[in-house]
Amino acid sequence: MIEMHNWTIIDNQLPVTNSEALESIFTVGNGYLGVRGSYEDETISNTTTNHGVFINGFYETMPISYGEQAYGYPQERQSIISLPDATHIELFLNGLQVNQQNGHLSENIRQLSLKQGIMTHSFIWEENLSKNKIKVTFTRLVSFTRKHILAVHVEVKPLNFKKAILTVKSTLATNDLTINKNSDPRVANVDPAELLKNTEPIKALNPQTMGFIFPTKNSKLTALIAISHSIAGIVDKKTCTFTKELLIDQKPISFDKYACYFDTREDHKKSSLSTVEAELNACRNTGFEVLTHEQQLYLTDYWNKSDLHIANNYNNNLELESRFAMFQLLQSVGKDGNRGIAAKGLSSTGYDGHYFWDTEIYIMPLFTMTQPQIAKKLLINRFHQLSEALQHARQLGYKGALFPWRTINGKESSAYFPASTAAIHINADIMFAIQQYFYFTNDLQFMHQYGLKMLVEASRFYLSYGNWDTNKGFVLNTVTGPDEYTALINNNAYTNLMVKNQLEFLTSSFTFNDVANLGLTAAEWHKFKLAAAKMFITTEGNLIGQDDSFLTKPKIDLTKLKKSQYPLLLHFHPLYLYQHQVIKQADLILAMALMPYRFNLQQLQVNYNYYEPLTTHDSSLSRAAYAIVASQLDDQTAFNQMLQRAFSTDLTDGQHNTNEGLHTASMGGTWLVISLGLAHVRATQNNLLLDPILPPQWEAYVIPITYHGSQLKLSVSKRETNITLIAGKPVPVILNGKKVIF
Amino acid sequence: MIEMHNWTIIDNQLPVTNSEALESIFTVGNGYLGVRGSYEDETISNTTTNHGVFINGFYETMPISYGEQAYGYPQERQSIISLPDATHIELFLNGLQVNQQNGHLSENIRQLSLKQGIMTHSFIWEENLSKNKIKVTFTRLVSFTRKHILAVHVEVKPLNFKKAILTVKSTLATNDLTINKNSDPRVANVDPAELLKNTEPIKALNPQTMGFIFPTKNSKLTALIAISHSIAGIVDKKTCTFTKELLIDQKPISFDKYACYFDTREDHKKSSLSTVEAELNACRNTGFEVLTHEQQLYLTDYWNKSDLHIANNYNNNLELESRFAMFQLLQSVGKDGNRGIAAKGLSSTGYDGHYFWDTEIYIMPLFTMTQPQIAKKLLINRFHQLSEALQHARQLGYKGALFPWRTINGKESSAYFPASTAAIHINADIMFAIQQYFYFTNDLQFMHQYGLKMLVEASRFYLSYGNWDTNKGFVLNTVTGPDEYTALINNNAYTNLMVKNQLEFLTSSFTFNDVANLGLTAAEWHKFKLAAAKMFITTEGNLIGQDDSFLTKPKIDLTKLKKSQYPLLLHFHPLYLYQHQVIKQADLILAMALMPYRFNLQQLQVNYNYYEPLTTHDSSLSRAAYAIVASQLDDQTAFNQMLQRAFSTDLTDGQHNTNEGLHTASMGGTWLVISLGLAHVRATQNNLLLDPILPPQWEAYVIPITYHGSQLKLSVSKRETNITLIAGKPVPVILNGKKVIF
Repeated sequence: MIEMHNWTIIDNQLPVTNSEALESIFTVGNGYLGVRGSYEDETISNTTTNHGVFINGFYETMPISYGEQAYGYPQERQSIISLPDATHIELFLNGLQVNQQNGHLSENIRQLSLKQGIMTHSFIWEENLSKNKIKVTFTRLVSFTRKHILAVHVEVKPLNFKKAILTVKSTLATNDLTINKNSDPRVANVDPAELLKNTEPIKALNPQTMGFIFPTKNSKLTALIAISHSIAGIVDKKTCTFTKELLIDQKPISFDKYACYFDTREDHKKSSLSTVEAELNACRNTGFEVLTHEQQLYLTDYWNKSDLHIANNYNNNLELESRFAMFQLLQSVGKDGNRGIAAKGLSSTGYDGHYFWDTEIYIMPLFTMTQPQIAKKLLINRFHQLSEALQHARQLGYKGALFPWRTINGKESSAYFPASTAAIHINADIMFAIQQYFYFTNDLQFMHQYGLKMLVEASRFYLSYGNWDTNKGFVLNTVTGPDEYTALINNNAYTNLMVKNQLEFLTSSFTFNDVANLGLTAAEWHKFKLAAAKMFITTEGNLIGQDDSFLTKPKIDLTKLKKSQYPLLLHFHPLYLYQHQVIKQADLILAMALMPYRFNLQQLQVNYNYYEPLTTHDSSLSRAAYAIVASQLDDQTAFNQMLQRAFSTDLTDGQHNTNEGLHTASMGGTWLVISLGLAHVRATQNNLLLDPILPPQWEAYVIPITYHGSQLKLSVSKRETNITLIAGKPVPVILNGKKVIF
Repeated sequence: MIEMHNWTIIDNQLPVTNSEALESIFTVGNGYLGVRGSYEDETISNTTTNHGVFINGFYETMPISYGEQAYGYPQERQSIISLPDATHIELFLNGLQVNQQNGHLSENIRQLSLKQGIMTHSFIWEENLSKNKIKVTFTRLVSFTRKHILAVHVEVKPLNFKKAILTVKSTLATNDLTINKNSDPRVANVDPAELLKNTEPIKALNPQTMGFIFPTKNSKLTALIAISHSIAGIVDKKTCTFTKELLIDQKPISFDKYACYFDTREDHKKSSLSTVEAELNACRNTGFEVLTHEQQLYLTDYWNKSDLHIANNYNNNLELESRFAMFQLLQSVGKDGNRGIAAKGLSSTGYDGHYFWDTEIYIMPLFTMTQPQIAKKLLINRFHQLSEALQHARQLGYKGALFPWRTINGKESSAYFPASTAAIHINADIMFAIQQYFYFTNDLQFMHQYGLKMLVEASRFYLSYGNWDTNKGFVLNTVTGPDEYTALINNNAYTNLMVKNQLEFLTSSFTFNDVANLGLTAAEWHKFKLAAAKMFITTEGNLIGQDDSFLTKPKIDLTKLKKSQYPLLLHFHPLYLYQHQVIKQADLILAMALMPYRFNLQQLQVNYNYYEPLTTHDSSLSRAAYAIVASQLDDQTAFNQMLQRAFSTDLTDGQHNTNEGLHTASMGGTWLVISLGLAHVRATQNNLLLDPILPPQWEAYVIPITYHGSQLKLSVSKRETNITLIAGKPVPVILNGKKVIF
């Protein structure tokens, strides 16, 4: 579908196919703002398109409609909104629109540079009658350093004529905005066209600046979206249209377009409008080149700390695939402490732009290990939603806090509780990320300001949700684990292990005195310890039951299913799936991938052998975990297979739905596979532990790790294993069981 | 709220309160047609009203809207339709409408005669200015012998004046029709006003006959509703209005109104319209008195076979309450083999007019033991929906047939599968009713024509749903039992016991040869036997677990809840309820009530003691079962309490929702309490077993039973226990363990 060379993703197919998946792949963003990689003027091709510009966490609410209501169900659906698209630019040559109808494309290339943070789209177009030929290049960036800014540089180069009039029509496009096509059409959905009816033109001081005030109806948020150009033209502020006629005579001509997207969730001391105007003025004054330079600097620093090197004999793409993943994660992740990372990043309205447990379990490890300042902001975003989590638990009848299964604003937004609210492992997932963050950073201030309060309330919840069974110990009944093909079962092994881990972390890394000011009693503290110690896990010898009754259920022979029957959730009733030993995604195996030190090799082997054939990998979250455990077990065939499918999820459209957005969790999985599956990175409060292995078909890999503020590089090759201290003071490392200081 | 005397239910309150609950109580019907007991002209009072006329099984379908869709969910909601009300009659005295505004009511009485099958409404009205006083009496019946006929006799008696003009305006009223107010307003609902837009006037030959053709939009059914009067008047066929001016001079004047309700699900050889006209002509020709006479004869026969006598020292109402229940059940139950009995009878749109398991477990015993021809028709209705049940099982991924949890047309219509489709005991409930029907009637022809086919397919379903557990035997995992405060659990004791019963019934009362023609293999037959023998039930000594994990869950101290927190389902999230040992309605205790011979007394005692304090009785289906087991255990206090609450559910509005319709299952429960809780009636293929007891505070009771076609009467008093053969040949009876022939 696409080509990859030297830090660059390239689409140069003609005619263009599967354009909507490509639009997802060529998304540019900065974690606040994201823009799908659609054409500036889609009439140059005849493929379908889905424009989409998204502000992370800018959402509308709509009532949820239930077939059967019950007490305590969430009543509001939160949905990210597709905003007017500032990349839209139409060109006319001697009055004829530069499109498919009036001419012929002999070249059409989209390139996404992972080093520069720039998407270029260039094409050569020959007008049908005059045979006038031009090369058009759009260069697009969403600035990492100027949070609200999208910039487009336009260059038109005459290739075979002397003189012509080039007319530019540049707008804030409001047609073809992405809507959530995937969901039930009868479910209340946010139609951007509905919201557009309430927009008003902004009243900018600058006569060349125009835009919309874009208010939501129910969620009471407002976005300000404004554009301005580096050249003056005719401005229609009502329709947000900029028109300019330019004489094109042999030399290329170029201009810039700047857009500012700003929403009322942003802190601002001045009025929004003056902030927006000031940011646009600043862009026009500095110019596009400065923006690209800033972008470059930002990314140099990023890659310096987060780049992976992979060299192997059988798949040249792995390195670039993992870089693509790390780049898109950077583009998707909220960095201001008030926004998370959506399941589809900022590439679509898929999953309503919600934040899931994917954030903490699949995505955060990359940031925790290489960009802890970003990891911290994600955790602070959760902290800001703690009051909703406390309320959520109370509404359900429990103590403490239960974080929502899917949310933007901190309130639970899922409409089927057996596969959402019942997945109470969400708390432990977030606490796992806090543990990792703390171990990798030693950021005690964070723990006292944010972390411990979350830990205490999340632990209180579990103590009130669970109960004591005379024979079993501490049990967590009526839960749903990561595997959503089983629901409302007792003692999901993943959940219980993660909760045990959380309680042990809290009670062993901290003392009662550390949390006494949080209103915790000594009795509660004691119960935390006891529950951790007595946490129940079903076992049959080395085989661990995914839950109390999983092992007694009949199996489905997956080898007898047709390819067209996957994913199973689209072809089987939930009851049938719940009734069988069939797994959507890594569950117990995920616990093994995250905490291998809690299992012996025999347990890993027995359980991998048991659960792998039952797993459909119908979720893109699955294969990374299996790859990690396969690597532990030295099963190279399985490792390679799982890893290749995990790494290429979006670039090969492996789940057949990249058109509906990128799979951020799967991208996070690529980091997990290398760090946990090969380098075996693990932090404790006092040491960084590394037990790297090199698969036989691999030549080498290099992985960067930031531990307690110091930047390290682990290089593993056939010849040797090396750790280098790149920046910061020396830190204690245990390499292959031997303590060293780097 | 109401008075009860000598086979009559009386409402004579002034001013009227809680009118909508009374309208439910005063419903008249014949199992095909039902009419709420609302006033002919509701402007005589200022209470709210809910008109409603219902044809059993005449429904519209609407799409079900889900918060989250999944594969295999029912897509269509079936809803019974509230039809235009032919009881509507307005009277005017000298041009002034006989209503609250123009006059004063000094008496206003509704009476429902259980012996005559007639509802009368009479009132005395004095006009404000002239002080003219009249007594108006409406006598209403829905004929048991003329399936489609509703008739109203009107009498106006002048009380204190010589002459006046009485104007009659009689219509098919289409305002204030009952709609399902209880459900989520955002859920697609059938609004009769929407459907009314599609009606057309009928083209009757008789110039005095008028009416509507009333088609549904989606379900493709049509009703014909026509009215005709015993006197000629001005007829507006378009609005279906009959107007007549009558001179009223000292003598009472009277007239009749006949309505015919006929739907296209009826078999008819002639055209619908000519059938309707012929039925109305026949009524006019015979007259109202003949209709009342027919009604009387029908009910004499009914009471002869189904009347209970109760004499006790502490509650005079029990007898009349049980008669009310038996009368309303007769009025509600479909008798043509194409309609069932709805949860609310024909008294409202509550539960969408659906048929549930209530039919077989709570309601059918009355008919099976006293009116087996009606029981048979109910089972034949299920048989007619067997093909949908086969398809339902196939859609879910299983073999055989799974009957729907709630339905009119045989298709599953529930929107939350954990508390519906997962309640797979529905099959065993229906098969239990077949077993009872067969044992009480010895109707082998029914078994070969209908029963065995259902039994085989229902059993096949269980064999494919369940599986074999090495340690436990045959298990049925991921099910929901009668107690809906627990869902998707393993080995619900009620379910497993009922399935065991079903398989034993099939394989012990019949041979493989009996079913070989149904495509069953000998291997399947063998598995039926084996599954019955190895059916798993969780036990801890004498204590039986409601399911595999129920006993390990924490309890809720129900004594600490406020009254306002009931029913719990309106105040607690399902997850919280599922997590706790809290019970909505009799579950294991119901199995004990239905099959006491499967338990010893100690088991009954231990389990009653354990489960009773956990049970909220939030369902009106609960108390009858507890009363039966309390009686077995000779716990008079509990028995009396449960029985009194069960018997008076609607007449005292005990569930606070009789305004939304009658509770037919609770009514069926009154029969269950006497027959199973006191008389201990049980049929086997060869004997009728009776082990009657008399509670100490009771003087006597008499219960009729039809066994193998012979009608018996069991009289139990402080002095003696008597069985009498009323009709038919002698049959073998085992009375208190001693075989006798009556």
